[in-house]
Amino acid sequence: MKPEDKIKVAIFGYGNIGRAAEQAVKSAKDMEFAGVYHHQEADRLKEAAARGETDVVLVCTPTREVPEYAKMFLEAGLCTVDSFDIHCRIADLRRELTATARDGQSVAVVAAGWDPGSDSVIRCLMQALAPQGLTYTNFGPGRSMGHTVAAKAIEGVEDALSMTIPLGTGVHRRMVYVKLKEGADFADVRSRLLADDYFAHDETHVIQVDDVQALNNVAHGVNLVRNGVSGETHNQRMEFNMTINNPALTGQVMTSCARAAVRMRGEGRCGAFTMIEIPPIYMLEGEDEANVRKLV
Amino acid sequence: MKPEDKIKVAIFGYGNIGRAAEQAVKSAKDMEFAGVYHHQEADRLKEAAARGETDVVLVCTPTREVPEYAKMFLEAGLCTVDSFDIHCRIADLRRELTATARDGQSVAVVAAGWDPGSDSVIRCLMQALAPQGLTYTNFGPGRSMGHTVAAKAIEGVEDALSMTIPLGTGVHRRMVYVKLKEGADFADVRSRLLADDYFAHDETHVIQVDDVQALNNVAHGVNLVRNGVSGETHNQRMEFNMTINNPALTGQVMTSCARAAVRMRGEGRCGAFTMIEIPPIYMLEGEDEANVRKLV
Repeated sequence: MKPEDKIKVAIFGYGNIGRAAEQAVKSAKDMEFAGVYHHQEADRLKEAAARGETDVVLVCTPTREVPEYAKMFLEAGLCTVDSFDIHCRIADLRRELTATARDGQSVAVVAAGWDPGSDSVIRCLMQALAPQGLTYTNFGPGRSMGHTVAAKAIEGVEDALSMTIPLGTGVHRRMVYVKLKEGADFADVRSRLLADDYFAHDETHVIQVDDVQALNNVAHGVNLVRNGVSGETHNQRMEFNMTINNPALTGQVMTSCARAAVRMRGEGRCGAFTMIEIPPIYMLEGEDEANVRKLV
Repeated sequence: MKPEDKIKVAIFGYGNIGRAAEQAVKSAKDMEFAGVYHHQEADRLKEAAARGETDVVLVCTPTREVPEYAKMFLEAGLCTVDSFDIHCRIADLRRELTATARDGQSVAVVAAGWDPGSDSVIRCLMQALAPQGLTYTNFGPGRSMGHTVAAKAIEGVEDALSMTIPLGTGVHRRMVYVKLKEGADFADVRSRLLADDYFAHDETHVIQVDDVQALNNVAHGVNLVRNGVSGETHNQRMEFNMTINNPALTGQVMTSCARAAVRMRGEGRCGAFTMIEIPPIYMLEGEDEANVRKLV
């Protein structure tokens, strides 16, 4: 592939996901790595875009900062990919970014991680295969970022890790490992944590440890199950399971979606799209016909 | 939904899959069932299309007849959906029908069953999630149509059923149940069958029975496994399992793809597409934004 035909992909934000995304971009033969930009370098990225040095940016900031930066880069004419993961706000973000992307003649792929993201594609496909029925998404075992942050904020907690354990039918247990601040009382900390809105509705176990980092692991997983009806035929059973390195998968999904974003812009289909709105083949390296021969 | 906004879906061919597809179309609130057409009624269907009584036809003929009829209906301006399942010829069929569909200003969805079909979407997604690695497709337990037909053609066989049993890593056992013709010798039949090209390369067991119909069951299944690499991270494990009524699922997938075909034609994107080339959301009933809220 000629260098000028490669997709130029930059990374904005350099935490776990940014680092993993860098590896994914560098592993893609049809991409050119267009650099890492830290938070304070947003203007420098816009300038690089103006000079044509970047086609698409993977927005790897904390999720709450995604809307602001995605908008900024779309306005600058860059395609964006994010893994915004606050489920109840995805449809609104998609709507907002659609307007911005159309103005900027660009494409945003939103909520492009694994859940939301590839799991959403699975749920959508299962719905098409058996339109009536129930789908359960069972997460873990793996670390919940939201619950870990909530546990760390409890008075008397120095460090914490909240693991999500799947109990089936979308019900989850929380295993919370806490290191106490000096002088804090475990019974008090436990009571406060169990009363917190993040934990009050689930079966929650609080365990005192000396070293939280010794337990840390970016492994995660999911079990997606549907039992549904195709036509008039009941008991159509389907299931998707995954055990993965969480940031590595997120970075890879974002990278694959960068390809889709640029391709859709090339077709003049500007706007913001979730992964269920993108032809899956657009995420792949290589020619369509070759991929059809290999995968269909 | 107003009757005039409904998608008018006809069925051509009325075997197991045609019957299942009829149930799926009748279960869809956004579709109007536009009738069943038997083989000899192709002209009558083209006339109905000319009168605007049909938008899309599900081509439910035996797979070898699909290319001929799909072409005929696309030329008549109908969208078509088929579940053509000869894997090695799908890319060629897609290419042929692309030209026909563009001439007829129409859309063909090809190979829209479960394998090829929804399994292809899973394989494509797994490839996007972990671009390097191995995917294994393990079929069954379930009846193989191709192997059953091959077994029935063996000299001395009155009736037969060939079950596909998954042994993992894409290797399959064939369990072949045969009822002999009067006077046929089991040892001879068994030798001929084991030498047949359909069976010679797999572990095959031949079992004599008095009644093949008593064993018949349209249940089938699949286990799709990938262990791959995301970026530079190995051991990303993903798996899809299904246990289903085979014709019911095929009929449902074709019906869901009818929706996608009409929508793509509405966008002016004429041509032939496999399921990995279609946005998954196009297969669903309902508004996009509502589906995004529910599934992403």
